[in-house]
Order: sequence, then C-alpha cells, then structure tokens
Amino acid sequence: MQKLASIIDAQQFDQKTLEQIFETAKEMENKTHSDLLKGKIMASLFYEPSTRTRFSFEAAMKRLGGEVISTENAKEFSSKAKGESLEDSIRVVSGYCDVITLRYHKEGGAKRANEYSRVPIINAGDGAGQHPTQALLDLYTIKKNFGEIRGLKIAMVGDLWNGRTVRSLSYFLAKHYPGNEIFFISPGRVAMRDDIKDYLNRYNLSWTEADSFEDLLPELDVIYQTRVQKERFAEDPTAYEEVVAESEKLIIDRQKVSQMKRSAIIMHPLPRLSEIRYGVDKDPRAKYFEQAENGLYVRMALLKMMLVGY
Amino acid sequence: MQKLASIIDAQQFDQKTLEQIFETAKEMENKTHSDLLKGKIMASLFYEPSTRTRFSFEAAMKRLGGEVISTENAKEFSSKAKGESLEDSIRVVSGYCDVITLRYHKEGGAKRANEYSRVPIINAGDGAGQHPTQALLDLYTIKKNFGEIRGLKIAMVGDLWNGRTVRSLSYFLAKHYPGNEIFFISPGRVAMRDDIKDYLNRYNLSWTEADSFEDLLPELDVIYQTRVQKERFAEDPTAYEEVVAESEKLIIDRQKVSQMKRSAIIMHPLPRLSEIRYGVDKDPRAKYFEQAENGLYVRMALLKMMLVGY
Amino acid sequence: MQKLASIIDAQQFDQKTLEQIFETAKEMENKTHSDLLKGKIMASLFYEPSTRTRFSFEAAMKRLGGEVISTENAKEFSSKAKGESLEDSIRVVSGYCDVITLRYHKEGGAKRANEYSRVPIINAGDGAGQHPTQALLDLYTIKKNFGEIRGLKIAMVGDLWNGRTVRSLSYFLAKHYPGNEIFFISPGRVAMRDDIKDYLNRYNLSWTEADSFEDLLPELDVIYQTRVQKERFAEDPTAYEEVVAESEKLIIDRQKVSQMKRSAIIMHPLPRLSEIRYGVDKDPRAKYFEQAENGLYVRMALLKMMLVGY
Repeated sequence: MQKLASIIDAQQFDQKTLEQIFETAKEMENKTHSDLLKGKIMASLFYEPSTRTRFSFEAAMKRLGGEVISTENAKEFSSKAKGESLEDSIRVVSGYCDVITLRYHKEGGAKRANEYSRVPIINAGDGAGQHPTQALLDLYTIKKNFGEIRGLKIAMVGDLWNGRTVRSLSYFLAKHYPGNEIFFISPGRVAMRDDIKDYLNRYNLSWTEADSFEDLLPELDVIYQTRVQKERFAEDPTAYEEVVAESEKLIIDRQKVSQMKRSAIIMHPLPRLSEIRYGVDKDPRAKYFEQAENGLYVRMALLKMMLVGY
Repeated sequence: MQKLASIIDAQQFDQKTLEQIFETAKEMENKTHSDLLKGKIMASLFYEPSTRTRFSFEAAMKRLGGEVISTENAKEFSSKAKGESLEDSIRVVSGYCDVITLRYHKEGGAKRANEYSRVPIINAGDGAGQHPTQALLDLYTIKKNFGEIRGLKIAMVGDLWNGRTVRSLSYFLAKHYPGNEIFFISPGRVAMRDDIKDYLNRYNLSWTEADSFEDLLPELDVIYQTRVQKERFAEDPTAYEEVVAESEKLIIDRQKVSQMKRSAIIMHPLPRLSEIRYGVDKDPRAKYFEQAENGLYVRMALLKMMLVGY
Repeated sequence: MQKLASIIDAQQFDQKTLEQIFETAKEMENKTHSDLLKGKIMASLFYEPSTRTRFSFEAAMKRLGGEVISTENAKEFSSKAKGESLEDSIRVVSGYCDVITLRYHKEGGAKRANEYSRVPIINAGDGAGQHPTQALLDLYTIKKNFGEIRGLKIAMVGDLWNGRTVRSLSYFLAKHYPGNEIFFISPGRVAMRDDIKDYLNRYNLSWTEADSFEDLLPELDVIYQTRVQKERFAEDPTAYEEVVAESEKLIIDRQKVSQMKRSAIIMHPLPRLSEIRYGVDKDPRAKYFEQAENGLYVRMALLKMMLVGY
C-alpha cells in the first residue's frame, strides 16, 4: 500500500496513477458515507474565495468521515499589517492538520507551500498557474462517457489564453492520451498560448486552431466550452468587449447542439455565463453539472489515496 | 414514514404538520446529541451574513450527528466578474450535500432554488420575503408557554411594515389558529401592510390597529416586539428619525411590564436595540432568549423530518 | 473530578492548575484522535479574524471528537444597522453550544461575555487586553524544553509596549515562577509598561531593562522575540519608522544565535516579519514553530478539562 504525495501540478502523474485515481473515483460514486478518514483533519486554506471548489473538497472529506478547518480569508495571515510569509503560515497550519487544500492567488504558491509543509498539499488553484484536480475531474468525465480517452475529437472553446482548465487538460491529453485530436476554437486575441502548442507538438498530439466551428460540429465528440474571464481584462475593457463580441458565434445553443452527434458531450468548468444557453441544459449531451459532481468523487478518491493509501 | 419537503414559505404547512413539527421539537429539547443524521451533509449557503440564523441551523445539524459545509460569502458564486445564476449555483451545490439552507438577498430566491435543486431547500430568509422557520419557532414559543394557541390577545409591536417575522406569524395565525385576537401597534408610517390585513379578514381573524398601547397592557397575553429596521430606511434618514421618535412610547420597560398579566410573555425575534430595556431581561415574562433557543429545537425537528422522516 | 471554569485572564490560575494543564497537554501530544468530546459543540465567535488562533482551537476540538460552529464575521451580530450588544449575542449563542471561544476587539470583552453566558467562555484575545491561552502555550514550551521553569534568564525582546503576549507571560512568571530573571530589551519608545514592572516588583521577580543585547547573548536561556505591531502605530507612521530602525540591532540572525548557549531556545508568538531571519529557522534552538504546535496540545488540554473534567 502506497500513499499519493502532494498534488501540485498536472504533469506529475503517470498514467498508471491516473487510472487508479479514476478507478477509485468510480468506487466513490456509491459511497454516500464512510468512516475511512475518521480522525483526519483537512485544512481549507483559501487565499481567495472559491466557494465551489472549497465545498467540493470539504464535502469529499466529510463524505469519508473526515473533519475540516476552513478559511476563505487566509490573506489575513499575510496581511499588510502582519505580513507573514506563505512559508511560515504553512509551517504553522501543517502542525494542526493531516492535509492542506491550498488556493493561492499567485502562481507557484502550491509548490512553495509543499517545500515547508509537514503534511501533503493539494493545489486547489494558484493564480494563473494550475488547478490539477479540475483537470482530473475533466478527464474522469470524458472517460466515464466514452469508456476510453482515445480516438476522440475534442474542441476547447472560448478564452483559451486565460483559461487555466483548458491548459491543464491539454497537458494531460498530450502526455498520457495519444490518438486524440484537439481543436482550439477562440477569438484570435485569446488563442491558446504557444507553450501548450509546443507541448502538444512534442508529444505528437494533433491540433488545429480556428475562430469558429465552421462545419466541425457534426464531427466533434467533446465540446469543452469556457467563459471569457472578464477579471483578467481589468486593465483593458475595450479588449474585453471585443472578445465578447467575437465569442458570440461560439455560443452553444440548441441549434448548434442539434448538429452534434448523439454521443457527443458538452462540458464546462463553470461558472457559466451566456456561452452555453440555458435551453441546452436539458439536452442529454449537456454534461457540465455531472462534471461538477464528478469533482466530488475525484476529490474523495484523492483524499483516500493520500491519507489512507492505495 | 413520510419526509417533509422543502420549506419555502409559511403558507405551505397544514395544521397537522405544524403539530408534528412542534411535537418533534419538544422531543429534541432533551437530545443533547444523537447520531440520527450521521453521514448527512447540510450546505449553509448564505448570500448575506446572518450569523445567528446560520449558527442555529448548523448547531441543529450537528446536535443530530450531521455535517455542514458553510459559506457566508455565497455572493462570490454570482459576483459581477463571474456572474453565475442562483440556479446554476444550486445545481452544483445540490450535488455535494443532502439539504441546502439558503439565505438569499432577494425575494423569491428559495422558490427559484427549489426548482433546480436535487435536494430539499430550507428558506432561511429571502430579502423582504419570508423566513418561515422563524415563524415556526415563534409559534412554538407561544404554544410552549400557553399549551394552546387559542383565545390569546397578541400584540405585534414596532416596525410592522418592514418586519418579515410579524408578517409570517400573521399568516400562520390567520390560517391555522382561529380564535385569537391580534393588535398591530406601530407608528403610522410603518403600520402593517394591507395584504396581511386582507389575509386576516379573509380568515376572520380579529385585528385592531393603534399607535400606542393605551390601556391594553393588562389584557395582552403576548407582546411581540420588533426593532425599527434602520437598513430599510437607507434612502430616507429623516423618516427613520421620525419613526424612532414615535416608537419611544412603545419601548417595553419595567414600568410597562408591571402592568402586564403574570402569565403574559414578551417576545422579540432579536437583535434587540433599545425597544426592550435591559432591565426587563430578568422578568420571568421576558421570553426572547428562550425563543432564540427554541429555534434550535424547531430546526432540529425540521432537519429530522426532512432527512429521516416522521 | 472537577471542571475548569471560563478562561478569562492569565492571573486566574493557581500553580497547581497550571501543572495539571501542562500534564494534560503532554498526554495530548500522543492523541491524534479521540472521541472524548463527541457530541460537544464549540462556537468560534471571532469579532476580528485570527485564522491561526481559530484553526488551533478548532483543530483541538476536532482532534477530541467535538464539533465546531464558526464565524470570523461576528461583528455582523453587532453591525451599525443591527446594533446588538455583545451581551445579547452571547446569550443567544450560548444556547446553541457547550463552550464559546471568543475573540473580541475591545479589552474586557471576555469578562463581559462570561457574565451572560450559560456555557464557559475562553478568551482568545480581547483587544489590548489578554490572550491567556497564548501565555499558557508559551509557558508550556519553556517547561517542555527545560523541565522546570526555574533559574532561567528570559529576555523579552521587541515591541513590549504593544505586545499582549509578553505582558501575559510576565504575569505568569511573576506570580507562579519565582527564581527566574527577566530582561526587557526594546527601543525606548516601546519599553515594557510600568504596570508590569510594578507587578514583577511586587512578586520580587528580578528584571532589567535595556535597548540592546550588549554582552547578554551567551547568558540567556530564552529569547522571546516579538514583532513591531505596525497596526498600533496607525496614527503615527513616523514613530513606527523610528521603532523599526531602532529594532534593527535586535534582529536575531545566525551571527547572534552563534553566541547563544547550546541549550538556549528562541521563541516567537508569530506572525514573524524580519525580526528573526529565515536563516535561523533550521537552528535547533529555533522553537517558534514547535511553540505554535504546542498551542494545539494546550488547547486540547483546556477543552478536555473544561468539558469533561480532570
């Protein structure tokens, strides 16, 4: 029996571990409650609020019988007046708990934390950096719907420049899931960055870039839609307006869905604005709420594998 | 064995259910702890902070062995930058828990939530709308003190225009408890609204309106005092000053209490400002802290009846 | 079997009780989990955020199998709009739980709360007043490292005027631990206040005052370093700059540590800014993170002794 180490980025996993995570997640779908983590404490240390992610982790911990201490206000630890370093905060908190779920506002926070923590760290998003458990639940959702992640045509759509989730998902697909085909569909100004394209090339994953669906819809297996991240355009509201305008034609509505395969699925990391119309929600291909729920099972699996072993 | 459905408004209950709630609440008074709700998770989803109400629900859940995930910061779900709808938030959160306690800042929030939730919703206050569990604990307090809610003279006092609790209590009394007499005592500017008066008329509940107690004090069985809701006068501070000045003569002090019956009770939904003097607190007729504690038992009863059945 | 009463200030303990607290804390060091407090609820009622202290108490409660209801937002109870008194809030909350951990922004809050609470209160810091559990964990740390708190040379260093922890620690040492020698080392402007010096004199505890270490370092057993409390200088930023400049020579760095005894220990209540250099952290004499962890064991001991007995 081995234990999963800290979860810092998407690249750290080998394929065997991924399969074990997904297998464990599947077992978790039937566990409404267990005492597996009785006596274990998770600290939710969120330097910026993210109620959805925090709830998902905390519900996972509690479904397994564990306990939680929680703050969405962790910046207080390092407030201007008090000025404590992340490293010191982590050393203190890791003396109180068995695992730390960390949301940090700057890239690299999880890695820094991991160097000083006496307990494992889970990266729950670090600024423009990574959000590896989101990528895991995305993969799990694809696998659950198609059995295998192979031979699929996967479109990532929307604000690909700022989207943390599409970046992490691309890393995973390139490294562990050969034989799929990726389509980056976005306004030119927020196209996928070159580092990811280079990474895909290195692993020989086929990708194409476009600013509209053209006649692609009937071919796709997965549409991974994302919202335009308004908060990243704070300094350039005109650019935001332009990107929103150019994203109009990428909105998923019932008309577009009607052109898709019966077996296709529509994903979204949520929150969703208008980039998927509410009218689509009842279509059986709309999987974004199921995707959110899968986050619970994947996080239960990770906590079990970190704190008990596998 | 049946289960109580979502609790959205005061009008939804029939009298038989009310009696079962009160009976269960009574049993709960002796339960300092049980494992009845072991493995169940309640999400406290508060779009505005209300520590008192949240603590009461969370303590109720925990006294019964259940677990809680909690936020007072739920607006983050629907922040300007992210802009998620209440409906989407509810669909996600209802995938993580077994019941949602929702405080929403706009009327109708609980009803909207209930249409999309996969788990039962408890309305913990929705703007100027309803706060049905408060009304239940008010009724329970009256019943506990008088045995039956019949033949009582009940004065509702203070800012009746803005008071959510007196409105909900009036609905209950009109529909289920005939044979009581209601007195609305308030400055003219914040008198009880016509919709409630019409509702009382429809159910033939006798009511009178006044702007002072005059010689009513020795006759009353219940004084339900409320505070002037300053926050509702944000746009008209002069009106606030006037209402406060006219409320002076409605302040409950020891002199007024001395005119009341030995068996009378003084209630208040809290928080209390100066509308009941601190000197009254030690009088055995002062029941407002007992009333707050009754909230715990009523909410334990509701959670038990929703999640286990009755 | 007796139960520990509310913990309001450092002066309330007799020496026998202190010894029992430390003995119980020692037992707690081996308890990763127990069911000792199953069914008990602690309310964390924080009128200002202090994530470190709150986490420490909540982890203590949960390690012992207890439950927590928690807010860092308790001022909402007494917001301008609502205006509830601390006394009323306490009366309500004490109806929901078995013990209240109170952080209040004004001196005397814990004492006031204790007069109205139906359950024991633990003072988790009240403004410029006391923070007795911090003083207990400080003493415990000294005792753990030296076996006995006797014949030690203890330097308290830094902003002694504003430092709550050094004040409480001085009270304890004066009253219960004769035969030690205290050195107050600080810029003149933030020297230890006279009330503490008088108190030490009354108990014949030897103390000296200085504004630098001079040739003291090789003699000291304990250096208790503290940060300059910038937030207390809000109205006088120039004074802050001066104090920081004069504190330069008090910074603990590796050069200073090299002059200290092998057996000496360096303490700090945290958060730490630059008054102890990061380079010192790996020296075995650096005990400030161990000190923070000791807080967990001391708080477990207190909760056990309050809620179960000893």
